[in-house]
Amino acid sequence: MAHVRVEVADHIATITLDRPEALNAFTDEMESELMTALDRCDADDDVRAVVLTGAGRAFCAGMDLSDADATFESWRTSDRAPSGSQYRVEGQRLPFRRDGGGRVVLRMFASDKPIIAAINGAAVGVGLTMTLAADIRVCADHATLGFVFNRRGLVPESCSSWFLPRLVPMSTALEWVLTGRLFDAHEALRHGLVRSLHPAAEILDAALGLAREIADNAAPVSVALARQLLWRMLGADHPMVAHEIETHALNVRGVSADAIEGIGSFLDHRAPRFADRVSVDLPAVFDHRPVEEFVARPGGAP
Amino acid sequence: MAHVRVEVADHIATITLDRPEALNAFTDEMESELMTALDRCDADDDVRAVVLTGAGRAFCAGMDLSDADATFESWRTSDRAPSGSQYRVEGQRLPFRRDGGGRVVLRMFASDKPIIAAINGAAVGVGLTMTLAADIRVCADHATLGFVFNRRGLVPESCSSWFLPRLVPMSTALEWVLTGRLFDAHEALRHGLVRSLHPAAEILDAALGLAREIADNAAPVSVALARQLLWRMLGADHPMVAHEIETHALNVRGVSADAIEGIGSFLDHRAPRFADRVSVDLPAVFDHRPVEEFVARPGGAP
Amino acid sequence: MAHVRVEVADHIATITLDRPEALNAFTDEMESELMTALDRCDADDDVRAVVLTGAGRAFCAGMDLSDADATFESWRTSDRAPSGSQYRVEGQRLPFRRDGGGRVVLRMFASDKPIIAAINGAAVGVGLTMTLAADIRVCADHATLGFVFNRRGLVPESCSSWFLPRLVPMSTALEWVLTGRLFDAHEALRHGLVRSLHPAAEILDAALGLAREIADNAAPVSVALARQLLWRMLGADHPMVAHEIETHALNVRGVSADAIEGIGSFLDHRAPRFADRVSVDLPAVFDHRPVEEFVARPGGAP
Repeated sequence: MAHVRVEVADHIATITLDRPEALNAFTDEMESELMTALDRCDADDDVRAVVLTGAGRAFCAGMDLSDADATFESWRTSDRAPSGSQYRVEGQRLPFRRDGGGRVVLRMFASDKPIIAAINGAAVGVGLTMTLAADIRVCADHATLGFVFNRRGLVPESCSSWFLPRLVPMSTALEWVLTGRLFDAHEALRHGLVRSLHPAAEILDAALGLAREIADNAAPVSVALARQLLWRMLGADHPMVAHEIETHALNVRGVSADAIEGIGSFLDHRAPRFADRVSVDLPAVFDHRPVEEFVARPGGAP
Repeated sequence: MAHVRVEVADHIATITLDRPEALNAFTDEMESELMTALDRCDADDDVRAVVLTGAGRAFCAGMDLSDADATFESWRTSDRAPSGSQYRVEGQRLPFRRDGGGRVVLRMFASDKPIIAAINGAAVGVGLTMTLAADIRVCADHATLGFVFNRRGLVPESCSSWFLPRLVPMSTALEWVLTGRLFDAHEALRHGLVRSLHPAAEILDAALGLAREIADNAAPVSVALARQLLWRMLGADHPMVAHEIETHALNVRGVSADAIEGIGSFLDHRAPRFADRVSVDLPAVFDHRPVEEFVARPGGAP
Repeated sequence: MAHVRVEVADHIATITLDRPEALNAFTDEMESELMTALDRCDADDDVRAVVLTGAGRAFCAGMDLSDADATFESWRTSDRAPSGSQYRVEGQRLPFRRDGGGRVVLRMFASDKPIIAAINGAAVGVGLTMTLAADIRVCADHATLGFVFNRRGLVPESCSSWFLPRLVPMSTALEWVLTGRLFDAHEALRHGLVRSLHPAAEILDAALGLAREIADNAAPVSVALARQLLWRMLGADHPMVAHEIETHALNVRGVSADAIEGIGSFLDHRAPRFADRVSVDLPAVFDHRPVEEFVARPGGAP
């Protein structure tokens, strides 16, 4: 891979945006390589947590503008596009190019492995929005951040219009996005966008420490299910949806080798050694059909 | 009842988890008795608010593990289960046992009476997740808390995958659940999981004080409607859903005896005396059909 | 207009509730005039941001109670109502009067222009709930606030059951609404209901400053799209919904004159001059049909 580097050590994969000469600006190639990297992490049972960071002094300075120019030009001149240099959405199905940052965050959203973003420096535009589907964000204390789209005549992307108001208070999300202003790491911390600030030299260790805590203590299949449950239930219209899926998951995992080990090790006051593997033992709890017992959802008691 | 105690005094019901010798560990019997207790509170117009607490030094140490063992064994050996010692979810409808904690929180979710959780000590696993459907949580300052499921090879339950990210910031919810770590009351306060901390000796009074404020000042039918509105609208996809239901509620309650008394007492600078009763006067505003005036929802102005 | 005043200067419209002798109490006429004022702001390309404030010492003391009396009486005696002085919701379609505050906030929700609420003094009942659909709230440091409905025998309105728990933590929303208590501006700030406090004499300037920052730096079409995206995605059940709409918006706006100007001015280190107009150039990105590429939403990777 040319724009992304992946290393695995002690059950933790580190994915590094690796164009330091361009402040890791986001390209089509980087998009494609991030998808590959995340696929590999999910397929590899040896990986229990993922850290996402950037090489050099920036995390990611946003879309590569030369690349952007090519992108927009390809839209403009697409032979699938209506005649004219600019097409409009008018109800008909349009040819279009999917937002690349959106593809990456949707892949992160669906990840079986937890993702810790180590924002080691400036994170602007897609460089910031791509971190929103990470489970936890730690940030270098000198970093500059910004949802600058409105100042470029563009719009929020990478599904940030869905993620951001679920991570920080709605009014903060609106103020950052509407003004498009740059803000510093301390403001990000104050509003909960990032978990903690660290000197740049310590940011990777901070992320690895959190990844380590998960990798060493939590059952990998439990982690995959818990991560998916929390992210997906963020969009569920009623707690009954969670009840159905959690019940299915408990029925399957409650009799698993991991549960026997987890409860046994707790009673024995020793560290657990979980043997179940995500590639084999992850139940498809999200695709079930609701059962009769659950249908009387709307009114009254369950 | 054997594992739960209920007392009513001055319009406030106190429900106490009452197995102090077992740190109030959660059993099937406790589940069933909590459902009964909540049913009684809803049926009794004399009850205007509910406090949920634990006897002894803990609030609830989690699922009773001996009971859990029996539970999981019953799943394993169910004659309704597919052959083999462990079944998998593969799209077909499966026999299963509903998550007991989930049943309790769904009953709390549907409650007509406000619920204040007085977390008087350790609250771990289901001992913590069962409090998430309470309207307000106050907490003893020495309490230890934890969503420990991932360390036991299990998964989040009691609908906590739905409730928790709606009560604390998503990244905090993920960190607590993914790591499965124990944390103290101060961390819970800092992230908004609990409203306030109190010495153990004062925790019940703190909860009773909040219950008293509601019981003494707010119209019981208004409280039931407001509680249901806020919890249910948390899952609504558009404010128009709220507009429809609020409009129905205002049309009915705007001409009620309580509204006349509420507005009259305000104008007279005296305390209101609300006479309407939840058992009789609560309108079924959530079951109405949308009216024509409301259907043009998606595009443009309302 | 009799109860509302609108002034436009330097691309900012100031809408003033203008019944200072009645503490700007909310009337049917005020509702109707607010709708007109918001329509005008959306139709006028010269308006890039809106400030909503009150004349005199209060922002809005709530529903005008004499007017309320007439309102409730009109419901009671409506010839469309079932016989009897009070009707009940029993599943059938009922004649009713739509909640006026709800109509106003739904209009604000749909606004193409950002709205900054300058809460210059007391904001109680509908006087507070009507501000919840503003993008940002700044508040006079002496202001008294309250969701007092439960103390009047009424219910939350103006879609506040949808908005409030999305702006402040759910437990805070419940405590304020259930108790119906008055609280001060400092408590509002502590829980994130308002962005910042200011002396009464400076509150309008604080709001105008934020409006100015948006008007001077952000492309108006981008602002309209970003505002709609964030508010609407707050109700979307999956980030894929955002991905579809953002992709459409990027495809259209990525080749717009504003994008060329926005990126060009950034590269040239100069202030942008955006020429696209909301009245003409706003694409209908919310009404599109999902395309095939997007349908494989539920399971697995996107």
